[in-house]
Amino acid sequence: MLKRLKAAVFDANLEVVRRGLVLYTWGNASGIDRKRGLVVIKPSGVPYETMKAADMVVVDLDGKIVEGKYSPSSDTPTHLVLYRAFPQIGGIVHTHSRSATAWAQAQREIPCLGTTHADSFHGPVPVTAPLSEAEILDCYEENAGHSIVRRFASLDPLAVPAVLLAGHAPFAWGRSPAEAARNAVVLEEVAALASETLAIHSTCGPIPDCLRDKHFLRKHGKGAYYGQTR
Amino acid sequence: MLKRLKAAVFDANLEVVRRGLVLYTWGNASGIDRKRGLVVIKPSGVPYETMKAADMVVVDLDGKIVEGKYSPSSDTPTHLVLYRAFPQIGGIVHTHSRSATAWAQAQREIPCLGTTHADSFHGPVPVTAPLSEAEILDCYEENAGHSIVRRFASLDPLAVPAVLLAGHAPFAWGRSPAEAARNAVVLEEVAALASETLAIHSTCGPIPDCLRDKHFLRKHGKGAYYGQTR
Amino acid sequence: MLKRLKAAVFDANLEVVRRGLVLYTWGNASGIDRKRGLVVIKPSGVPYETMKAADMVVVDLDGKIVEGKYSPSSDTPTHLVLYRAFPQIGGIVHTHSRSATAWAQAQREIPCLGTTHADSFHGPVPVTAPLSEAEILDCYEENAGHSIVRRFASLDPLAVPAVLLAGHAPFAWGRSPAEAARNAVVLEEVAALASETLAIHSTCGPIPDCLRDKHFLRKHGKGAYYGQTR
Amino acid sequence: MLKRLKAAVFDANLEVVRRGLVLYTWGNASGIDRKRGLVVIKPSGVPYETMKAADMVVVDLDGKIVEGKYSPSSDTPTHLVLYRAFPQIGGIVHTHSRSATAWAQAQREIPCLGTTHADSFHGPVPVTAPLSEAEILDCYEENAGHSIVRRFASLDPLAVPAVLLAGHAPFAWGRSPAEAARNAVVLEEVAALASETLAIHSTCGPIPDCLRDKHFLRKHGKGAYYGQTR
Repeated sequence: MLKRLKAAVFDANLEVVRRGLVLYTWGNASGIDRKRGLVVIKPSGVPYETMKAADMVVVDLDGKIVEGKYSPSSDTPTHLVLYRAFPQIGGIVHTHSRSATAWAQAQREIPCLGTTHADSFHGPVPVTAPLSEAEILDCYEENAGHSIVRRFASLDPLAVPAVLLAGHAPFAWGRSPAEAARNAVVLEEVAALASETLAIHSTCGPIPDCLRDKHFLRKHGKGAYYGQTR
Repeated sequence: MLKRLKAAVFDANLEVVRRGLVLYTWGNASGIDRKRGLVVIKPSGVPYETMKAADMVVVDLDGKIVEGKYSPSSDTPTHLVLYRAFPQIGGIVHTHSRSATAWAQAQREIPCLGTTHADSFHGPVPVTAPLSEAEILDCYEENAGHSIVRRFASLDPLAVPAVLLAGHAPFAWGRSPAEAARNAVVLEEVAALASETLAIHSTCGPIPDCLRDKHFLRKHGKGAYYGQTR
Repeated sequence: MLKRLKAAVFDANLEVVRRGLVLYTWGNASGIDRKRGLVVIKPSGVPYETMKAADMVVVDLDGKIVEGKYSPSSDTPTHLVLYRAFPQIGGIVHTHSRSATAWAQAQREIPCLGTTHADSFHGPVPVTAPLSEAEILDCYEENAGHSIVRRFASLDPLAVPAVLLAGHAPFAWGRSPAEAARNAVVLEEVAALASETLAIHSTCGPIPDCLRDKHFLRKHGKGAYYGQTR
Repeated sequence: MLKRLKAAVFDANLEVVRRGLVLYTWGNASGIDRKRGLVVIKPSGVPYETMKAADMVVVDLDGKIVEGKYSPSSDTPTHLVLYRAFPQIGGIVHTHSRSATAWAQAQREIPCLGTTHADSFHGPVPVTAPLSEAEILDCYEENAGHSIVRRFASLDPLAVPAVLLAGHAPFAWGRSPAEAARNAVVLEEVAALASETLAIHSTCGPIPDCLRDKHFLRKHGKGAYYGQTR
């Protein structure tokens, strides 16, 4: 079942490996079939070298395994919380990519320091509040998801398609698994750019709102004019 | 038409990819045929993997498409302003290469900290003034070009063949598309060197003018003696 | 003799090369057969390109060569001290990997700044005390081992499977040569993450103990639930 | 003539390219035949892709071309000064490798912060004094060589086989072209390690003299015991 979605999720998992965002098995991608309410996700701790599209695990939105011989990623509960809270997203990617993880560890949001950032993220990439001890001890992965949803109370997940989980690492998402993978890759580049920018100019502020809007909107939404429309 | 120029522009586009300056489609190279007043430029948002020399778009100096099935790069108006203002240049390359973009985001000119810089840039690599809100809202890409031209009011574009667009990323140029690509690559190396130099010695000043002149002039102009002249 | 252990040690030596942790011959991996009390270790200064599994040297726990045409790694005495003091370990890897070596040179322990660290190291990666002049002049490599053992007086070597030798470089270990190699690779990533984290936020503190415990224990020990257990 | 030396010089030139120390043609290696007083050096500005061993240029110690269809490297006068002043060296390599060049631009000697440094350099890697305007204007490349020789007035070139030319880049040398290339590669790693070490601990001092001596002397000189001597 869900053969095409499995292929898309499998490819998103490999794409972040190809782009150098993943060491060993430290990453996972998923996708959702909204009609059926089923999520396809990478199995936990299976080496990428031998993983096949057919190894992807199918779970329902409560985390019950519907199909698959492997256990799903241990981060599955986080993915499910996001799919339930953000109906507009179709794919999620979690990595421990170097620079984005450093920003997550620093517990600093990534300010919008340039148009490379604004082309994909319509404002700072936010960082979640730390979890309480109770949230860590019980249903940790699910509570991580809730902390993301709380952080996005007044944010549009498609305008800012990524978050830094405090002390942990980034999650990125998009309308599809492929778009989620791309946002994870762009986030890593944006984070690395921000690190080097602040090393050059430690008090550098964000670009003006109008420049941020111009760049985001020339690539996203009704007035977009980047790429091929002819 | 313009088959050789298309090949040269295509190759300049691929060269900056090969050198690791481009993520996804974040870059564009162009070249000009001065006799015919026609510019050849990369199509917008077409993946490098499938792009062919024949896909390059031909526009006139007012931006009218003369040939090509694709839309030209969304940065075409910036290229055209530069070709009109700098008659001595024959090729332009825009990238979001890591270190040069960090300097553009920091809105700091790259000081001439060593002979590697002076071998290719006869002085600091300048940064443009920020655009006003009006310049961003209307004819943004064209106004970006004008801000570069204003910054070069008293500079020779062939002596300093690159600029940092404030809050955005670098543009480099040269007498040909190949030279523009090479200057984009050198700029990235020079920017990375400057970042590491200031990390070691935060108040490091530029090299003396006479050393800067010596290096630039041993590679450029009438007295050049680098390379093969025998 | 010890054909399988030689193959495992050989592979651990190559693994850290493949992962980019080793320049020239600056690294060595070993493994122990606890029943026979024999250690298999890389020969000293032999290029990786031509090295074969059969070239691994077999020594007893006093350092006497039992088999092999080559001299063992000059760091063999350090390995032997560790095998004698830490009965629970089965493999050791020493490298001069970039970021971990920088932390060793800085003589700073690597704080547990995030869950990537806590997934593999249950607390800071410690740094040894400097050796005295007497310890350097006589039996230097053996004394380096003793300084590690002293540093672990109140630490569990399998809970924190690596150390920074002050002014020198890291040693990592594990239950097998493969696990030691993996810990060396993870240590390098964790060290690089810590460097970038502190560059972003210079006074960043460690993650809370309960988050550290949660991550270490979800991958290690009886309650582990990461990976495939179904 | 000098077929074997040409092959060795050619290979040293390629080795620093393979190791990532050279962008475009920014590097040159040479070797000397002491009996004949002839130096073999890379031609100036010839692309590595098409360069052959037979393209190496032969000059005498006064810089007169003895054989070769190409002009020798523009840095030839610097090489010749070093060969005349340091009779114990047999090969020289000049690169603009990233981290070593950053230290040269910062005009800071690289302190001996760890044993990786001490394994190859018996003390700090020194930086030359800046050249005067007169020295830059006339016989620049030769004067660069003299500034290196002055800096080594009380240093042994084989104990510290590299230097940072102030505001420019490193020169490394050794008893052969291959050893010079290796020292150039090690210098780059040592420089990168020093940059990251100081980023972690900005006031980090050098390792004790006895540790530095121990490491240098276990690899160099009569008492060396690293590698294969059995």
